[in-house]
Amino acid sequence: MSAFIDRLVERIRNCGNPVMVGLDPRWDSLPAGLRPDSIGDPQWVADSFERFCCEVIDVVASLVPIVKPQAAFFEQWGPPGMAALHRVVQYARRRDLLVVMDGKRNDIGSTAQAYAEAYLGPNSAWGADALTVSPYLGDDSLEPFVKVCEKTGSGIFVLVKTSNPGGKFLQDLLIDGQPLFTRVARLVQQIAQRTAGSHGYGLAGAVVGATYPAQVGELRAVMPNSWFLVPGYGTQGGTARDVADAFDQHGMGAVINNSRGIIFAHTLPRYAEQFGESRWQDAVAAATREMIEQLQAETRVGSIARPATAP
Amino acid sequence: MSAFIDRLVERIRNCGNPVMVGLDPRWDSLPAGLRPDSIGDPQWVADSFERFCCEVIDVVASLVPIVKPQAAFFEQWGPPGMAALHRVVQYARRRDLLVVMDGKRNDIGSTAQAYAEAYLGPNSAWGADALTVSPYLGDDSLEPFVKVCEKTGSGIFVLVKTSNPGGKFLQDLLIDGQPLFTRVARLVQQIAQRTAGSHGYGLAGAVVGATYPAQVGELRAVMPNSWFLVPGYGTQGGTARDVADAFDQHGMGAVINNSRGIIFAHTLPRYAEQFGESRWQDAVAAATREMIEQLQAETRVGSIARPATAP
Repeated sequence: MSAFIDRLVERIRNCGNPVMVGLDPRWDSLPAGLRPDSIGDPQWVADSFERFCCEVIDVVASLVPIVKPQAAFFEQWGPPGMAALHRVVQYARRRDLLVVMDGKRNDIGSTAQAYAEAYLGPNSAWGADALTVSPYLGDDSLEPFVKVCEKTGSGIFVLVKTSNPGGKFLQDLLIDGQPLFTRVARLVQQIAQRTAGSHGYGLAGAVVGATYPAQVGELRAVMPNSWFLVPGYGTQGGTARDVADAFDQHGMGAVINNSRGIIFAHTLPRYAEQFGESRWQDAVAAATREMIEQLQAETRVGSIARPATAP
Repeated sequence: MSAFIDRLVERIRNCGNPVMVGLDPRWDSLPAGLRPDSIGDPQWVADSFERFCCEVIDVVASLVPIVKPQAAFFEQWGPPGMAALHRVVQYARRRDLLVVMDGKRNDIGSTAQAYAEAYLGPNSAWGADALTVSPYLGDDSLEPFVKVCEKTGSGIFVLVKTSNPGGKFLQDLLIDGQPLFTRVARLVQQIAQRTAGSHGYGLAGAVVGATYPAQVGELRAVMPNSWFLVPGYGTQGGTARDVADAFDQHGMGAVINNSRGIIFAHTLPRYAEQFGESRWQDAVAAATREMIEQLQAETRVGSIARPATAP
């Protein structure tokens, strides 16, 4: 199987945009008809999540290259939730979408190995293309993931600079005058550089929040070989201009995630008015198209559809 | 429901020791009869894990206060693995064991909330007493867990100083002359202090590796109100003397985890010789008793059975 980044670049070229749709199902935001009246039965909620996410996938599969299911929202509903998550991943792959599992997993030694095998291994039970990974356990905790990724052509996105205000508690601490997140960034860059493929990007990407636009550009310079997963667009306040520096001169190098702003677009006043709750799928499509247009207008993403050799 | 620490102290008093048995099933170490010939069928492996863990629980339920299932090893086998994990947790609770889910979970905002509800909430699908949590996302990422713990009398163990060599990559970085892990420790202590119950310990505990004995004592001083979860005993090299400083003057304040050294004792030469693989449960019991004796001989744990007012 080709490397994750090669598959990602191909999908982005085909779609003409790097939008990632975050699959974060919450029972109280589901459209009428899918929203359970009570949340007493986890199986009911899990079934609703599956139907909802698969319908979202039906809408976005022809528009965007990649989706990111958030494990937590499925995990909340126990084994039925996890079974639904599994079917959602399989469905997304059947619709030719790439899948990043957002689990922020990690552990030490053979336990990290188990997480790597779980999500990215040759016999992966979950079948994701990439996984988000936490760096607090250190450099050796990333190695099992790197080895598995090399074997299966999958990828990881390491948390570097997260989009929440409290991220600064550890991430912005100064070490020899530089914030701690640059220490993590240099580690990610080392892995990315030594595993870089034909597009110049390696198997280790970085999570860099859209809510800190100045750091997006700084980190792009520190990690020239790392693909960025940029959360925080839309509901959290990040704009197309805020993420512009995440891209390279070809409009490549980053995927921009939007979760609630797309999947729950029917709850936003302007879409609610236009489509009503019953046409929530049209709201998903409209919100996705709007985000694509914003990125194409404000960033180098507009150049994606042009041949790869264009500057 | 009484607070997690109250339940823990009561269980420790009843058992006379603070041993935590780590439930880390690996298919290639399972005893004959439970070990699958091939790992082609995740359901087969998951069923084997469930039977094995429940049999381990049968052996240790009368000996120790608490178990710690490692989510990764179940997650590796997909939805069937997660269903097995769920049944193992339920079984441990039916046998009056406390359960710490070792998931090292965390995320931001409402996603952290979902993890908190999943494992510790009033309608928790998993039903754990406590959860291990990663701190890289910062102070605000811990708050949803704290609120849920306050509501349900559950607990968290925050990664502070992990047992692996690479933990030093971030954790030992010096900030104003002090290692970063003390910054995390002070945050944990703040939460523990403001939530401290009758035994002096709060709902936020700390993961502190047995493999760094000097730091165990330092961190005990920084976190007088935090219960310690100490991994790294046994297979990773930590000894009873190495963990002695984790305890307070009553022999309370810490649980010492042993995973492979107990559950796979049948693979250790001295137990293999004594019991053979067929009597692997006897090896589990013998290894547990040996660890209890080591802790009672080398630490203040020996005083646990005496009244709580004893010095």
